[in-house]
Amino acid sequence: MIKVGIIGSTGYAGGELARLLLQREDTEILWYGSKSYIDQSYSSIYPNMYKLTDGKCMDDNMKELAEKVDVIFTATPQGLCASMVDEDILSRVRIIDLSADFRIKDVSVYEQWYKLKHGASQLIEEAVYGMPEINREKVKRARMVANPGCFPTCSFLSVYPLVKAGLIDTDTLIIDAKSGVSGAGRGVKADSLYCEVNENIKAYGVATHRHTPEIEEQLGYVAGKPVTVSFTPHLVPMNRGILVTGYASLTREVTYGEVKAAYEACYRDEYFVRVLEKDVAPQTRWVEGSNFADVNFKIDPRTRRIVMMGAIDNMIKGAAGQAIQNMNIMFGLPEQTGLKQIPVFP
Amino acid sequence: MIKVGIIGSTGYAGGELARLLLQREDTEILWYGSKSYIDQSYSSIYPNMYKLTDGKCMDDNMKELAEKVDVIFTATPQGLCASMVDEDILSRVRIIDLSADFRIKDVSVYEQWYKLKHGASQLIEEAVYGMPEINREKVKRARMVANPGCFPTCSFLSVYPLVKAGLIDTDTLIIDAKSGVSGAGRGVKADSLYCEVNENIKAYGVATHRHTPEIEEQLGYVAGKPVTVSFTPHLVPMNRGILVTGYASLTREVTYGEVKAAYEACYRDEYFVRVLEKDVAPQTRWVEGSNFADVNFKIDPRTRRIVMMGAIDNMIKGAAGQAIQNMNIMFGLPEQTGLKQIPVFP
Amino acid sequence: MIKVGIIGSTGYAGGELARLLLQREDTEILWYGSKSYIDQSYSSIYPNMYKLTDGKCMDDNMKELAEKVDVIFTATPQGLCASMVDEDILSRVRIIDLSADFRIKDVSVYEQWYKLKHGASQLIEEAVYGMPEINREKVKRARMVANPGCFPTCSFLSVYPLVKAGLIDTDTLIIDAKSGVSGAGRGVKADSLYCEVNENIKAYGVATHRHTPEIEEQLGYVAGKPVTVSFTPHLVPMNRGILVTGYASLTREVTYGEVKAAYEACYRDEYFVRVLEKDVAPQTRWVEGSNFADVNFKIDPRTRRIVMMGAIDNMIKGAAGQAIQNMNIMFGLPEQTGLKQIPVFP
Amino acid sequence: MIKVGIIGSTGYAGGELARLLLQREDTEILWYGSKSYIDQSYSSIYPNMYKLTDGKCMDDNMKELAEKVDVIFTATPQGLCASMVDEDILSRVRIIDLSADFRIKDVSVYEQWYKLKHGASQLIEEAVYGMPEINREKVKRARMVANPGCFPTCSFLSVYPLVKAGLIDTDTLIIDAKSGVSGAGRGVKADSLYCEVNENIKAYGVATHRHTPEIEEQLGYVAGKPVTVSFTPHLVPMNRGILVTGYASLTREVTYGEVKAAYEACYRDEYFVRVLEKDVAPQTRWVEGSNFADVNFKIDPRTRRIVMMGAIDNMIKGAAGQAIQNMNIMFGLPEQTGLKQIPVFP
Repeated sequence: MIKVGIIGSTGYAGGELARLLLQREDTEILWYGSKSYIDQSYSSIYPNMYKLTDGKCMDDNMKELAEKVDVIFTATPQGLCASMVDEDILSRVRIIDLSADFRIKDVSVYEQWYKLKHGASQLIEEAVYGMPEINREKVKRARMVANPGCFPTCSFLSVYPLVKAGLIDTDTLIIDAKSGVSGAGRGVKADSLYCEVNENIKAYGVATHRHTPEIEEQLGYVAGKPVTVSFTPHLVPMNRGILVTGYASLTREVTYGEVKAAYEACYRDEYFVRVLEKDVAPQTRWVEGSNFADVNFKIDPRTRRIVMMGAIDNMIKGAAGQAIQNMNIMFGLPEQTGLKQIPVFP
Repeated sequence: MIKVGIIGSTGYAGGELARLLLQREDTEILWYGSKSYIDQSYSSIYPNMYKLTDGKCMDDNMKELAEKVDVIFTATPQGLCASMVDEDILSRVRIIDLSADFRIKDVSVYEQWYKLKHGASQLIEEAVYGMPEINREKVKRARMVANPGCFPTCSFLSVYPLVKAGLIDTDTLIIDAKSGVSGAGRGVKADSLYCEVNENIKAYGVATHRHTPEIEEQLGYVAGKPVTVSFTPHLVPMNRGILVTGYASLTREVTYGEVKAAYEACYRDEYFVRVLEKDVAPQTRWVEGSNFADVNFKIDPRTRRIVMMGAIDNMIKGAAGQAIQNMNIMFGLPEQTGLKQIPVFP
Repeated sequence: MIKVGIIGSTGYAGGELARLLLQREDTEILWYGSKSYIDQSYSSIYPNMYKLTDGKCMDDNMKELAEKVDVIFTATPQGLCASMVDEDILSRVRIIDLSADFRIKDVSVYEQWYKLKHGASQLIEEAVYGMPEINREKVKRARMVANPGCFPTCSFLSVYPLVKAGLIDTDTLIIDAKSGVSGAGRGVKADSLYCEVNENIKAYGVATHRHTPEIEEQLGYVAGKPVTVSFTPHLVPMNRGILVTGYASLTREVTYGEVKAAYEACYRDEYFVRVLEKDVAPQTRWVEGSNFADVNFKIDPRTRRIVMMGAIDNMIKGAAGQAIQNMNIMFGLPEQTGLKQIPVFP
Repeated sequence: MIKVGIIGSTGYAGGELARLLLQREDTEILWYGSKSYIDQSYSSIYPNMYKLTDGKCMDDNMKELAEKVDVIFTATPQGLCASMVDEDILSRVRIIDLSADFRIKDVSVYEQWYKLKHGASQLIEEAVYGMPEINREKVKRARMVANPGCFPTCSFLSVYPLVKAGLIDTDTLIIDAKSGVSGAGRGVKADSLYCEVNENIKAYGVATHRHTPEIEEQLGYVAGKPVTVSFTPHLVPMNRGILVTGYASLTREVTYGEVKAAYEACYRDEYFVRVLEKDVAPQTRWVEGSNFADVNFKIDPRTRRIVMMGAIDNMIKGAAGQAIQNMNIMFGLPEQTGLKQIPVFP
């Protein structure tokens, strides 16, 4: 039985962690951390779990928690995990951080994009970027995993095989992303009101979104040189889902088969990444409620570009599901444990 | 391993049966029946199941199917199951019919409301109305189960405890129901187009909806006398979910505790029916993606009426989930097998 | 040129007033009242009006405003209008109050349901309930109009002809209402977040909603005796629209023609109330963006009840449009001035 | 009084034409063409217009119609207008064609992308591409106007000022577009069902969408050389609206002021194009229900690219509204006649 604590359990990502973990029989949630709802029953905050847990919300005390559990998930605002974690804690418990605190290796890049002073920069080097498709072996041995962002996950998985195969000119890379509203979290703000979001689409964070350096860093490792991307997220009136449409110039003429082979080389053995059949475009509905990432591409000979597409459920492969996938790897469990939900449709 | 065949597997209810059953390890789908898509791969019709099944769609041949499987689900238009089933088939395989063919015991009532000649009226008596909360013992022994309709399931579970306890005057019973669009099925018709449904609500089938006699018959058994209800469904712009708001005059002054006790008497041991806490109204989002029915009530002393409320996922407790619940009972499995999904939110 | 001031201009109803009035050439908005946004440009709050007004938000000062304009609309929280208006102001300017402060004649009923001390109870008697279909002559002479609530408008117009004709037993009247989310206003609260409302339906204010006594009072005048109704509103995932489904027992057997005649007797000359053709159910999409109320009914011989249905745009006939209709009447203009928008579809 | 005929009046664009024209007092619709609904009352097809027109649907007879009206709008599938129009008809009536038949000057390009033989290629040269912002003078004298496509309108208006000013390298131009569902029309197909579109986003027509050559041709005229673009449309779960996000490399370093000036140079006198303030991203909700196009841009020094953004209501500026704008110009009326609706929000 893996004993689990969740700090930030009443946000949407925290709620999704709880929902997924409560469905397992090999894990037990011992701590529903939530500063805002201390002493309230967890199922009064998330009535979908009514009668399924009798947990109560507790304060954020990582030190105490580290005594009690085997793994802590932090689903908290940027900066909070870094302000709480230290060597002493890491020596006693594994940490899977769903915030951005340990995703970016260059602390100055982090501080510039997040406008925060990093609280534990000495631990950045050790933290493993928790994208199993590229870092599985490192995750196995990690004490702390930096769980990737939702946009970076979908962007990276869509583009990665072509960068790896050297088939695209990374200087021309443009990523146009579309997200459901749960990505904005459960915080109460005017921009997230139903009537402000419904029947509307808009870009936001144009040329300034904080997931940009995370995408660039990871693609840079693959390319073996710095990568700069134009990244624009859009808000779509739906609860869940991210769709990524990427554009880049081809480095040479390619056939469908060559590109397909590049994707298969990366994902043939990846249960959670599904390379779709020719001319089938990924759609968020076909991954909703699951840990799958569906990816595909379209060669455009007219423009000598390639369009790369990917779809994930931002709450699962983009947050809680990937975090649990990392937990499975860290604890030596089959990677799919508790994550075999088939996408829900309609 | 239970071998399963689904006739009508490409409709929404059929797709949900496949999705739920593919997640189990103790069942195997041997037959994806679908007249319209013969020989096409099932996952090309339901890409959420891409790479999760390699099944192909097959013709509707109940005789052949009966040789191969242990249980057949029919998720077909009204009249089709009755036209295919007979004593010979029933002697070889269990049938769980998701259509209305065997729900109503009085064949003339069926024929009047459904405008169809019944094709197997000799089997109506034997078929068991598959509402486990009232017919669990009969379901255990059934060769054929008539799986309840979505509106009747939600209506019945919301109202049943009060009829049973004699606390409401059934002559005053009004049921105002609201359904998501998946209830209309995957058939291509103008009224189900996105732009015709979105940003809209309407009543339909006013005073003529075919689920009315099913509700009346089942409540009549509980009341021990004929029950006539006003039933009005409405179409709500959402994929899934049914909400029922029932109104009736109280037969006498009651306290909150008395009514609560009436609900608890019926549902204390029912895993899938959750009686909510005082003044908490059921919401479809808290049951979506699960087999739960959430119910509650509000006494209105001003009008001497009681408002009864219930919420289900129409695709699960209102169709495929309840059908599988019945399968579990028929095959002696724990009733919750494969049905413990926690509602998905948001 | 009618000079207009709006107090509470940055809420949804205030925004709708501004939008409708800016489209006219015979009115001029001189005062965009908004405590929360003082000195900000109005079109930065409502960018749909970008370049169409250069107004700035101003403080709530009814005294100063009364000097400058011919009519003041108050689209403010309950209690605010009553706290500002007095005889001196009324002697200088007309008031159209979109809040509930002057809708209910019995101040004790108001104070009980609204949990507020009324600030100007001496003016209640004079205020005219601004439902033109019944009070047109009184509105003409009014200094202050209490603009009806959204649910009461739709409920009343749906039920009124049958109460007037004595065809229904008002003791059996049940009104089940469904509203879009804009009815909850632009206030920032968790319950109005996109992900909390989308893909969901729920009842709220069951047996306690504050529009209940308003409906009862107005129907009581028509019936000539007190009327008590069961009223339950529901929140529907759409921006605009109210649908009402009313149920009552018939006082005698009736024909379709008789009931139709009762509706026509009330609405034959009412431009804004459309009695639909036989068996056509009102839908909110067919009135959205307009000042129309679509109504119809269905006789149910099985239950000896009648189902009454109505649809309005809650922001227009349910708020700003009806307020402008009242303004037109008060200022001797053709009643449809500025209100002939055809419903927008899809 | 301008006498109007609409061929294809029961599609969404035709319905929008009827709605907008019925609100005017200087036009009269004499012919509601609709092959599918001959002899049915128009308001039974579009109940939003119930009691506002007593027109009946009539067959498609352009010859007869040309005798009766001053202008014919064709809101018909590709190929139909070209199959009906000829010199004789053009000598008697003005044509505003909302299909693509006369938008593309090179008939071979049309035939290749639309997979159709053009039925009246001799008239292509004469037809005027009805984008008033660039062709106003030609529209004044036109007998036939080719009304621009929805995506081309939004794409062109977003990008045009920078191409004209030579500030972007057109070889790097990428247009990622997002559309509401009404763009798919009222045709009954599975892909437009509510449950297939809701809670989903997908790309479609990747690298093959037929609006591509139209965008390229018009931008080519501005650039003075051939332009090739990557164009990808996406389907967004909302009724109306198009958002365009364009990306291109800058030809040189630019300041905000320079780019702003380029936009203002094009749109300063254009009522219907609103250049937003710095860092305000266009949103479809702020133009919905209106003929406005909102545009803006963001310089990204990191990538030396510029992001160009635009939003329109696809049914109005993208179809019926622009068609009426063209009609106003052709008939010497003020261009804004009947088109001053302020965007509807929420």
